[in-house]
This record gives sequence, C-alpha cells and structure tokens, in this order.
Amino acid sequence: MKNLQVAHIHIQKINGNSCTNENDLLAKEEPLEIKLEYSTATGRMQKNIAITMRTPGNDEDLAAGFLFTEGVIKNKADIESIKQSSADDNSLLVILKEDIKPQIANAVRNFYSTSSCGICGKASIEAIQMVSAYATIKNNFSITTDLIYNLPSKVKKQQSVFEDTGGIHAAALFNNNGDILLLKEDVGRHNALDKAIGHFFLADKLPLNNCILFLSGRAGFELLQKAAMAGIKMIVAIGAPSSLAVELAQENDITLIGFLRGNRFNIYSGKQRVIV
Amino acid sequence: MKNLQVAHIHIQKINGNSCTNENDLLAKEEPLEIKLEYSTATGRMQKNIAITMRTPGNDEDLAAGFLFTEGVIKNKADIESIKQSSADDNSLLVILKEDIKPQIANAVRNFYSTSSCGICGKASIEAIQMVSAYATIKNNFSITTDLIYNLPSKVKKQQSVFEDTGGIHAAALFNNNGDILLLKEDVGRHNALDKAIGHFFLADKLPLNNCILFLSGRAGFELLQKAAMAGIKMIVAIGAPSSLAVELAQENDITLIGFLRGNRFNIYSGKQRVIV
Repeated sequence: MKNLQVAHIHIQKINGNSCTNENDLLAKEEPLEIKLEYSTATGRMQKNIAITMRTPGNDEDLAAGFLFTEGVIKNKADIESIKQSSADDNSLLVILKEDIKPQIANAVRNFYSTSSCGICGKASIEAIQMVSAYATIKNNFSITTDLIYNLPSKVKKQQSVFEDTGGIHAAALFNNNGDILLLKEDVGRHNALDKAIGHFFLADKLPLNNCILFLSGRAGFELLQKAAMAGIKMIVAIGAPSSLAVELAQENDITLIGFLRGNRFNIYSGKQRVIV
Repeated sequence: MKNLQVAHIHIQKINGNSCTNENDLLAKEEPLEIKLEYSTATGRMQKNIAITMRTPGNDEDLAAGFLFTEGVIKNKADIESIKQSSADDNSLLVILKEDIKPQIANAVRNFYSTSSCGICGKASIEAIQMVSAYATIKNNFSITTDLIYNLPSKVKKQQSVFEDTGGIHAAALFNNNGDILLLKEDVGRHNALDKAIGHFFLADKLPLNNCILFLSGRAGFELLQKAAMAGIKMIVAIGAPSSLAVELAQENDITLIGFLRGNRFNIYSGKQRVIV
C-alpha cells in the first residue's frame, strides 16, 4: 500500500549557501475517474461522474464516499459492485442495482444550486438539509478538553504518509472516548474525508453522529458539507474554519473546533458538547 | 473590499482549563456561479459552467482566470463583457463575442480526460500541452537564493486577510528582480491562483514566463496545471509538492521550489534557474 502512496525523488536541498543532493519522498497524486452504471428508461447506461486528483489507495472508499457525500446515492445497498472499469488503476466503475435512480445532477459540484432561493451561502446550507438523510440527526455526547488536546498525538502516530512527505492532509474518526477508529490521508483534504466516510458507508455504519472528526488542516465549506451528509456532530480542526463552514455548523448543530495547538483551541459552534 | 472578505464572529477561546469569550475574524467563503453566454448554430445560449466556493472580491478576475486556466477561452479578446447575471452578487455572466467558440467540455473539471491515452498522470500532463498556448514557451532568467529567501516577508506585508484570520491561501506574482506585482487571497488555493492569473489575463499581459509565482501552501497538480497554462516557469511554494506536480513541472521545464522555511528550501525541478 505504501508504495502506491509514496513516490521517491531526487532533489536539491538548499541551506544558506550550501546545496546538497538528496533522495526524498513525496505523497503521490494521480487522477481517479469515477464512472457510474445505472438503469434508465431505455436500458443500462454508463456515465463519467467525476475525475478527482487523489493519492492512490482506498479508491473504493473514495468513490463510494464521493458518491454519497455529493448526494448521488443514498445507501451502501444502492451499489451492486465497484470494479476497475478497464485495465487502468485510475478508473473505477460503480455499478448500481437495477432499481436505483442516482441523482447525477448533484455530482458535478453543482450541489449548491439545488435550492430555489438562489446562489448564496444560505442556499448551500439548506440544500444539504434537503439532500441529506442525516443532517438533522441528534446526539447527546460531550467531551473534555483533555480528550481534545490528546487527539493530534494519536493522529500523528498513525500518519505514515505525512511523516514521509510532510505534504498530505488527514481526516480521522474517533469514538467519543477518544479512541481512534480510522485515519485516511490524501493530497486533497476532501478526498481524505470522502475516503473516511466512504469506509463507514461501505461498512453500513452511518450515521456517524457519535464520532469525532479530526481534520489536519483548515475546515472549509466542502468538508463541513461532507461531514453533515454523514451526520457528524463534532469536528476538530488544526486550522481555521471559513465563515460559511461555521454557519453550516451552527445551522446543523455541529460542534466545530479550530486552531487546536497544544493546549489551546477555539470553539466556533456547539460549545455545549465541550466540558471545560 | 475588506468587509467582503472578512466575517466577524463571537467565539470561545480555550487555554488550558480556562475559557474566554472573544470576538474573532474569519475569511469569508461564498459560492460563485460562473455562467457563459456564447453563439451556437441555433443562436445565442447561456450555460452554467462552474460553481466555486470562494472569498468574495476580485470575482471578475476569478471568473476570467477560471475560464482561461481550464481551457474554455483563450484570450481576453474572446470576452465581450462580464456582468452580474442577476441582482445576486454570487453569480457572474461572462459574455463571449459573436464568433468565439468556447471549449465547454474542458470546464467541468474534465480537463484530464482530453487525451486519448487514458486516465493517468501522463495523460493529464500531455493534455495541458495540447490545450495550452503557453506551456512550451521558453524563458532564460535565473534568480539567487537570497531573492527566494526574501519572498515570504514581501508577501506577508500585503497579506491582510491572512493577518486577520489565519485561514486563507495566497498566490503572488513577482518579477524576476523580486518585486511583488500582485497578491491574491482566497479560502481555495486554486481560486487564489485563478484570480492572480485572471488579473493578468484581463490586462492582456500573458504569458507570465518572466514572473515568479509564490504559493503560500502546498503545490498540487491543479495549481501547477493552472500555472503551466499561463506560461509560468518559476514556482516557489511554502509547502510540499505532490509527485504529479513535480512531473508536470519537469515535463514543462518549470522550476519548482517547495518547503521554503527561513533560509532553506528544496528544488524539485528546473535547478538551472537557481543561482546557489
């Protein structure tokens, strides 16, 4: 697996006025084509849904997570099978069952236009609530600050590609005791999250309303949208959120923590779940 | 402008066991819809090309830069006008001139599939060379390590949204004397770059083969692709590149520098342009 995710390269390291030639490791990036096969009035058809730039590995999780978090399919049971659509490692065909109608229009990053009230942040947020089965789900757990402070070191222990390359995003899921359940890495932060959610989606373990989502970087709208689709109610990010990410969290009763550094962090939404 | 780009919010700051309520600033994020009006055999038509999540401001640069770097249009002269397509700030209509045929198929992030040799990194790179007018352009300048070490402080001086929020990406263009020409910020790093390139595109100042592109974060494929489309030959990033980004740089004779920290950096491609 690691060979798929890491590339070896020869580089020059510059330090002050010195230059040394060294071997280095990079996080790999390759396109993944996601194709869908489904039934129409006139028979079965195949359609290219997306091409995403991702780190190879966990491709089925990625494809399933993408189709789910973008609202194209709703359940693991919608999928008949996932297979390589050719000899090419970089193309996956997701075959839907006979009676499943995918929401293709949702896929092409047009998710935000499904509301009738125009193109704005509010419409984007409302669209999620219309499309997601889990966005309005409840949960009641709360966690301590110590539990939060300890999340990064637990992630670091498992983050192999990051350790090698320094150039990758992580999305991790913890249970509400702070035990790590899953860690996914990718050059694209949305891909890392799609992989993580896709894993639980394929295991028929959604919603994730009793989990904590940890993000290694910033928390933008697209990540919050994907988390909301999976029913996640607690998000801890190392980086900064955007304003629309915070609005989405507030609208969907999601606890959003950002700028976690050592024994410090900010709460942007849902402070009732944090025991200070 | 600044009010458009920054949102005020009330947060809780946690420090050890203490919790304080504070006012904070966030980088704003809103969707932007980019629509295109152009001629077909049966008359004029309008089509939604993309919806992107961006920090408001420089929207025309963003729309033009997106259409150009994705290969939909080729010249500033292709554009008749850019205007709001409704009362909504978040929707722009780009009207093309009567005789211009846009490459719509390139727009929907399907850029990578235009090559006949399948879905792979090599095809992605070759596709750029087929679509871009500037990918194979030459340049001959070289720069000193001192010039490179001084880039981050020059960027920091102009990076107002980052200073306020800590949550935004920057793309800056320098001339080969190290003078800053332009800085754009956005929650999406590809948007920041589209804005920067779009600015010069609209000013009819492409290609940018005598400029240095500075990126505040990581250098992934999509950013390199956009830079190659504009003929940029020198890229300096604070973060790590991906493997495919390096391949693209090597194939297109682009100097790619990453991990610039203080007096250190790595050269991943095109070392002949760096005077050590």
